[in-house]
Amino acid sequence: MTTPSRRDLANAIRFLAIDAVQAANSGHPGMPMGMADIAEVLWNDYYNHNPNNPKWFNRDRFVLSNGHGSMLQYALLHLSGYDLSLDELKRFRQLDSKTPGHPENFMTPGVETTTGPLGQGLANAVGMALAEKLLAQRYNRPELAIVDHRTWVFMGDGCLMEGISHEAASLAGTWGLGKLVAFWDDNKISIDGNTDGWFTDDTPARFEAYGWRVIRNVNGHDPVEIKTAIDTAMAKDDKPTLICCRTTIGYGSPGKAGKESSHGAPLGKDEVTATREALNWPHAPFEIPEAIYDGWRSRSTGLVREDQWNRLFDAYAAQYPAEAAELTRRSHAQLPDDFAAAAQAYIAKLQADGPTIASRKASQMAIETFAPLLPELVGGSADLAHSNLTLWKASKSVASADPDANYVYYGVREFAMTAISNGLAVHGGFIPFDATFLVFSDYARNAVRMSALMGAHAIHVYTHDSIGLGEDGPTHQPIEHLASLRYIPHNDVWRPCDAVESAVAWRAAIERKDGPSCLVFSRQNLPHQPRSDEQLQQVARGGYVLRDSDGTPELILIATGSEVGLATQAADALMAEGRKVRVVSMPSTDVFDRQDAAYRESVLPGAVRKRVAIEAGVSDFWRKYVGLDGAVIGIDEFGASAPAEALFPHFGFTVGHVVDAAKALG
Amino acid sequence: MTTPSRRDLANAIRFLAIDAVQAANSGHPGMPMGMADIAEVLWNDYYNHNPNNPKWFNRDRFVLSNGHGSMLQYALLHLSGYDLSLDELKRFRQLDSKTPGHPENFMTPGVETTTGPLGQGLANAVGMALAEKLLAQRYNRPELAIVDHRTWVFMGDGCLMEGISHEAASLAGTWGLGKLVAFWDDNKISIDGNTDGWFTDDTPARFEAYGWRVIRNVNGHDPVEIKTAIDTAMAKDDKPTLICCRTTIGYGSPGKAGKESSHGAPLGKDEVTATREALNWPHAPFEIPEAIYDGWRSRSTGLVREDQWNRLFDAYAAQYPAEAAELTRRSHAQLPDDFAAAAQAYIAKLQADGPTIASRKASQMAIETFAPLLPELVGGSADLAHSNLTLWKASKSVASADPDANYVYYGVREFAMTAISNGLAVHGGFIPFDATFLVFSDYARNAVRMSALMGAHAIHVYTHDSIGLGEDGPTHQPIEHLASLRYIPHNDVWRPCDAVESAVAWRAAIERKDGPSCLVFSRQNLPHQPRSDEQLQQVARGGYVLRDSDGTPELILIATGSEVGLATQAADALMAEGRKVRVVSMPSTDVFDRQDAAYRESVLPGAVRKRVAIEAGVSDFWRKYVGLDGAVIGIDEFGASAPAEALFPHFGFTVGHVVDAAKALG
Repeated sequence: MTTPSRRDLANAIRFLAIDAVQAANSGHPGMPMGMADIAEVLWNDYYNHNPNNPKWFNRDRFVLSNGHGSMLQYALLHLSGYDLSLDELKRFRQLDSKTPGHPENFMTPGVETTTGPLGQGLANAVGMALAEKLLAQRYNRPELAIVDHRTWVFMGDGCLMEGISHEAASLAGTWGLGKLVAFWDDNKISIDGNTDGWFTDDTPARFEAYGWRVIRNVNGHDPVEIKTAIDTAMAKDDKPTLICCRTTIGYGSPGKAGKESSHGAPLGKDEVTATREALNWPHAPFEIPEAIYDGWRSRSTGLVREDQWNRLFDAYAAQYPAEAAELTRRSHAQLPDDFAAAAQAYIAKLQADGPTIASRKASQMAIETFAPLLPELVGGSADLAHSNLTLWKASKSVASADPDANYVYYGVREFAMTAISNGLAVHGGFIPFDATFLVFSDYARNAVRMSALMGAHAIHVYTHDSIGLGEDGPTHQPIEHLASLRYIPHNDVWRPCDAVESAVAWRAAIERKDGPSCLVFSRQNLPHQPRSDEQLQQVARGGYVLRDSDGTPELILIATGSEVGLATQAADALMAEGRKVRVVSMPSTDVFDRQDAAYRESVLPGAVRKRVAIEAGVSDFWRKYVGLDGAVIGIDEFGASAPAEALFPHFGFTVGHVVDAAKALG
Repeated sequence: MTTPSRRDLANAIRFLAIDAVQAANSGHPGMPMGMADIAEVLWNDYYNHNPNNPKWFNRDRFVLSNGHGSMLQYALLHLSGYDLSLDELKRFRQLDSKTPGHPENFMTPGVETTTGPLGQGLANAVGMALAEKLLAQRYNRPELAIVDHRTWVFMGDGCLMEGISHEAASLAGTWGLGKLVAFWDDNKISIDGNTDGWFTDDTPARFEAYGWRVIRNVNGHDPVEIKTAIDTAMAKDDKPTLICCRTTIGYGSPGKAGKESSHGAPLGKDEVTATREALNWPHAPFEIPEAIYDGWRSRSTGLVREDQWNRLFDAYAAQYPAEAAELTRRSHAQLPDDFAAAAQAYIAKLQADGPTIASRKASQMAIETFAPLLPELVGGSADLAHSNLTLWKASKSVASADPDANYVYYGVREFAMTAISNGLAVHGGFIPFDATFLVFSDYARNAVRMSALMGAHAIHVYTHDSIGLGEDGPTHQPIEHLASLRYIPHNDVWRPCDAVESAVAWRAAIERKDGPSCLVFSRQNLPHQPRSDEQLQQVARGGYVLRDSDGTPELILIATGSEVGLATQAADALMAEGRKVRVVSMPSTDVFDRQDAAYRESVLPGAVRKRVAIEAGVSDFWRKYVGLDGAVIGIDEFGASAPAEALFPHFGFTVGHVVDAAKALG
């Protein structure tokens, strides 16, 4: 073989995708075939990475927002020299392979984020580009641009139809994220066919309306046009760039190019043969000639790149040792050495002070305390700063060039906000938090799920956690949300009962590096609970005995958040009648369920079956603790518009009702 | 008082809002004060309604997408003569008043849809405008435009920041909904303050990119400019119109106009006094001079309008009796007389035929059977028609002018799709359905909640309901979704186990007029289950005994959907060992839970505590049926990318595992 052409190099992507999908008898060949030429130019001429070290901190980030085209990414990783063997490509979409159906950043080296749910990759990328901007403006010094990378996004029509593309693109424009470059795979085909019937937006005009640089009418199969477009995008860093690439889905397939039939199914044996002929690719499935590999492998250039950067960083560290140490600490996701002790001291002081405040206020106090210790903490709210109480004294908008910028005014964009948190988290160097009313976690729900799936260290703050929200009424009162968030695997939900538990929850969320936490806070004041030192330690176990009877209890009241105070009052009333009652505070069922069996048995003894759970949300969730024989005081209908003081009794949250329910158990 | 000026009329709105918020000590005065002049012009000069009959079918629809400004709508309804007394306005935001914090269409006459969750009102309005277009093109005849109304939307910056505004506006533009007119309350203020920091879109350019007519720079406090804009919007019906109104939030308040402090809190006593002086409104709180009422009341003109329409409809009915009867039936939400019998016959035939097919295929067969009986059935999918199997033989795109148009190509827009369903449903004349993969119900979740809150007759079809989806992997495999959807109050979720249960579920969804249903279907084939006539009748009760032992069972296996077949196999194995086993199929826990206690006891006898629930989703949900002593075969982690046949055993869905779990109960 002579020196391969750019088209030959791109065809290696095409046939790895075609053959892997054919072998799996499942997958999406059309997109990799359509975007192969763009990917080839980007990765071979521009993409700043080191296949030997997928975690090199200053690497460019590449996000496949149209994640169904995963084989494009696997082909790129394999060809350029990542630890992703041909055998793994042959096991595309098989159990425990490194090549799952959609890119999963926890499965495959070089995959930066998990995509597939459309539009979220773009928002993750906005988060990554924001991360780069914030780190650069904090740490870079003249001639020492130690943080300096681009974020590249591939996205399709589907991403652009999704609402989250609006939210994410709007913020990217507002923030002027000049190192973000998105390639639109404009192939006029989505799953249902030609998009003329359902996608008639003037997308370039739309992105110009967001303040993006838009490069129109690029032939996505012409390397020269692609290069010119990328050069234009890189020439100025004042705004994000959309490169509109006209492409043909399934490019090269004589019978299926330009048709939706190439999108989500194997081409079929005969069509694969025909495509081999049409693209002059005589090689057997999964056979890549050495000359092609030679055109792709980037291991040596990658080593050089990282080595150059290491030298730059050494020079930086010599001049700015404190900054270098801090960035190194952050990039390794290490908390400051003194964090745990400071947090413990703060929690102990709160226990001693005993403030009766709203837990959202306690949350703000925790942020105020922890943020000065953690420059990596960057947070914001979806236009509810003064309700969620997410601003702290040192808050500075990330829209500014301030080196200490740390606060995100997200506007009313819950979904992009949460996906941007995920992008900040998986970029590294940040512990992001976001905030809205608990009921509007619905708007962001799949991004919360993606936090959990990725194990992203993101913190989702949700205030106004029940009917205690009051007058805004049922559209704003969460009922099913606590249970529904708890059911997301690997997601930790906390609903603290007072300022102390709120601080413990914040500490747990900050220290939980391998997954997200949802912190759920009240609008209204919650009474402080007295605790022994042992009890104070046990809060972090998710559930613990807050009040106890002498000897074995005959009855256990289990409650969370605003209902813990009610449980203690009911316990008082019952104990006054001589009953032996235990009160269990359960701020995090997720964390409690992870405790060892002995501890769980010590809190909820199997022999004590008279149990009443109390929570201002759906009752059935609590059957896992009270079983068929216990009782639950919950809410299984929508709320109502009225002052909170009227709503709690209306929905049965009174001492009398709890006492009656307990007595009804016998 | 002399004849009141337009400003005086508008000030009546302002002060009803100011005073009601002040009395409630809660609410949002800023928006009603800012949009009062626009509302006055629209309602007094254009809005085609009849306050005597809020349900007049051909009325214009008015949607307050920025629903926090509810007092604007209540003031309009009160002033124009709806059955909403001054006493109700005085009880703003109090328990059981007709004036809840956000507009709720089930509480207040004249409120068309429930708003508050931002952006969804706009999408509901797109659904209403689509409803009008479809009814008009089916029923109208030359000179007999019996369906001919407009849909008017008020929306704020928050609605426009939300992603759903992108999805909804894009579809409205594609469909050319010329009778949809939206007013943008461009006041540059959202809750966090001046929007310069987080909302920099060129919104007029954005809407032009969607194919809307955009009227820029209208002074929202100048009735002449407002009238000119509305006239322009109404001059041509080829595309939807956005009227960009520059307004001042809290207009008239000397101290708070133009500031976020007027947005979401009472003005305060002194500021109310100052505003009375500034706007020359000397009247006491809740005192409206008769001359002002005279300028507003629309009861007599409303009667004339409806009367004129009734005469038009009579003329239509004389010429087109069948069409008139059909429209009348549809507008009264009555099913055809023969529907129930036809459905029953179809279900009986399926039971006899016994096909083993995917339940998504069974869903398509049900649509194919029922749609010809129901011209009110309009449905579509978010770009997954051939996966959700939502197309049927007579499907015709609603983008066309075809009188039988009934199919919506929604593109990849799950949230707007679902909110448009809600709009179609609350408009009347339609039973809408929408469809996506179950995992992407997340993207639409708050709109599903709004279906349930409103009691909207919408049907949400979700296919690929578990790990049975296979290779697409964990991003596409629902785990927590079934439980989370079931926890939405008033929402009926069905997960059928075969073609027969699928048809019953569809029938139930069609016949459930007062609320939504989520129909959850498999990707893969499900075996047909034999049933007696009695069992066949019991499917509609949500849970029933599918297989039974002789005498009292010692063990009950409870399953849904694809796990019912597994449960029957496990029962066979256990019965072969002499165990007395019952199998309960539970296609809808929601419906089962509504059955009388005797029936529930007959299916799940309280004395039989050895119970195993089997469902390929989160296990804890099932504790409500199996208690602390039973077992659950579920999934409490994320799925994986692999063929379905590999995944079910990987996650423990095997006969052996079920048998072992049952035996472990003793």
